[in-house]
Amino acid sequence: MILTVTLNTALDITYRVRSLRPHASHRVSEVTERPGGKGLNVARVLAALGHEVTVTGFAGGTTGDAVRERLAATPRITDALVPVTGPTRRTVAVVDELTGDTTQFNEPGPVVDPARWSTFQEAYEGLVGRADAVALCGSLPPGVPVGAYAGLVRTARAAGVPVLLDTAGEALRRGVAARPDVITPNADELAELTGSHEPSRATQDARRRGARAVVATLGPDGLVAVTPEGRWRAVPPARVRGNPTGAGDSVAAALLAGLVDRQPWPDRLSRAVALSAATVLAPAAGEFDPTAYRDLLGRVTVTGEVTAA
Amino acid sequence: MILTVTLNTALDITYRVRSLRPHASHRVSEVTERPGGKGLNVARVLAALGHEVTVTGFAGGTTGDAVRERLAATPRITDALVPVTGPTRRTVAVVDELTGDTTQFNEPGPVVDPARWSTFQEAYEGLVGRADAVALCGSLPPGVPVGAYAGLVRTARAAGVPVLLDTAGEALRRGVAARPDVITPNADELAELTGSHEPSRATQDARRRGARAVVATLGPDGLVAVTPEGRWRAVPPARVRGNPTGAGDSVAAALLAGLVDRQPWPDRLSRAVALSAATVLAPAAGEFDPTAYRDLLGRVTVTGEVTAA
Repeated sequence: MILTVTLNTALDITYRVRSLRPHASHRVSEVTERPGGKGLNVARVLAALGHEVTVTGFAGGTTGDAVRERLAATPRITDALVPVTGPTRRTVAVVDELTGDTTQFNEPGPVVDPARWSTFQEAYEGLVGRADAVALCGSLPPGVPVGAYAGLVRTARAAGVPVLLDTAGEALRRGVAARPDVITPNADELAELTGSHEPSRATQDARRRGARAVVATLGPDGLVAVTPEGRWRAVPPARVRGNPTGAGDSVAAALLAGLVDRQPWPDRLSRAVALSAATVLAPAAGEFDPTAYRDLLGRVTVTGEVTAA
Repeated sequence: MILTVTLNTALDITYRVRSLRPHASHRVSEVTERPGGKGLNVARVLAALGHEVTVTGFAGGTTGDAVRERLAATPRITDALVPVTGPTRRTVAVVDELTGDTTQFNEPGPVVDPARWSTFQEAYEGLVGRADAVALCGSLPPGVPVGAYAGLVRTARAAGVPVLLDTAGEALRRGVAARPDVITPNADELAELTGSHEPSRATQDARRRGARAVVATLGPDGLVAVTPEGRWRAVPPARVRGNPTGAGDSVAAALLAGLVDRQPWPDRLSRAVALSAATVLAPAAGEFDPTAYRDLLGRVTVTGEVTAA
């Protein structure tokens, strides 16, 4: 199984309103809810691709109950979330039906106390021992030490389990130093980590900081990857239009799937670009269009060079 | 005990954000939650005044669980909500810290099917038999017939229990025809019911349509009441500044408290105006400032005439 870690899980709520007017009262015409936080999104994509996934992190309160009820109804996902006292945060996305624009409200989430963090680390160590790969995803909730991901990367490496890290800022900087197998920063995260806005240069610099492989996600321009086996660029056949929410999570999911399937890097990158584009094309945020995915898979261009042995 | 009915209960959520910008992402700095819907607000005020209150209506899903958890933690409130399949609606109020303005999003709420409506009516009949007074408050959820309040008024009257009706539109029009003891429309609701924008005339017209007593709430201008015992106007000592949310619910609560305490009408109206003003003055929406309430109570001006016997 693949283990995904979401320390800052969320209940993602989407509201459709006719037109957003500040300081007015709005009748919500449609409400949708789903488990959120990057690791849960990655898990949902992996499960849809047919992989067995175990999810861990924290959940609490009635919002945590809502997240767990929905996970229980998703095939191939096993819930190993650790209970926490405060309620799981909500995110509310308000979609304006006239313009299609989204206004987002993100709650801060519950504080994780040191005892709860210790409980989690023990649970994580037990789960890692049974995992084929681990994904550490998203921001850290209040109370979790900023070096948290570095510790979780080291635990996975000590167990010989490959680990992907998808986070930002100081949590990424510290996590990279613990030598994760793959990181998947976007252009902004990469620039913040390395100080360079030039993707190819920044990607190499991120590897020097400790990541074995760096896959930079460049939105519609595809991916740039620097790995021990070589360096590649992967681009979609055409620019796709749609909702980019979740496209980055689909990249992480495809790379994990390719990793456990022992695919060569160029094939993993093709999958990642196709799945990401199929996610942008899907009507619902964070889901992918399976027909578009199969169609795109053979049409991704991967160029690059294999590192001399 | 006093029974309050809230067919369209809610989980009222308030978010504080630094400044609301459409189509941007916002970090919520503070989240507050409380049970909502007019009848639950009236119950909370009555309980704070020292009355035993039973609340009924519908609750479902994890949002319904959140409402019930909070009710269980409120002294003097007994939860007699009837379970429903869909989740209780949320309302989200986003407060802009820079301007103090509020932007509101209201979910539609779960559909109540005919079987569930029958279950509720049976439960209500049992509760009414043990009540000193009944308050029927707020809008009707999808699925509940528009004549619902008329039926609930008749059940209370058949049991000899006084009934206050606080709703709007067609539900109010039909409910009034069933002869409730008190209705508490605001100026807009009264105009919609009677076609007249002149409060004194509209109040009398509303009585002719079936209400035994009509107490029109005129915001900062106080109350106009036409009852079988006489007609009065009650005004606060000075214009109060603050958050008017919940002021109308405090009027209903004060009138119910005065009714079960068998106070003369002028005293009930003084309490209603003082409690309403103390609610506007309280920092949190829908709560009242007890010191301001006691202070205001002796300073409300009630003028009017007793009907000749």
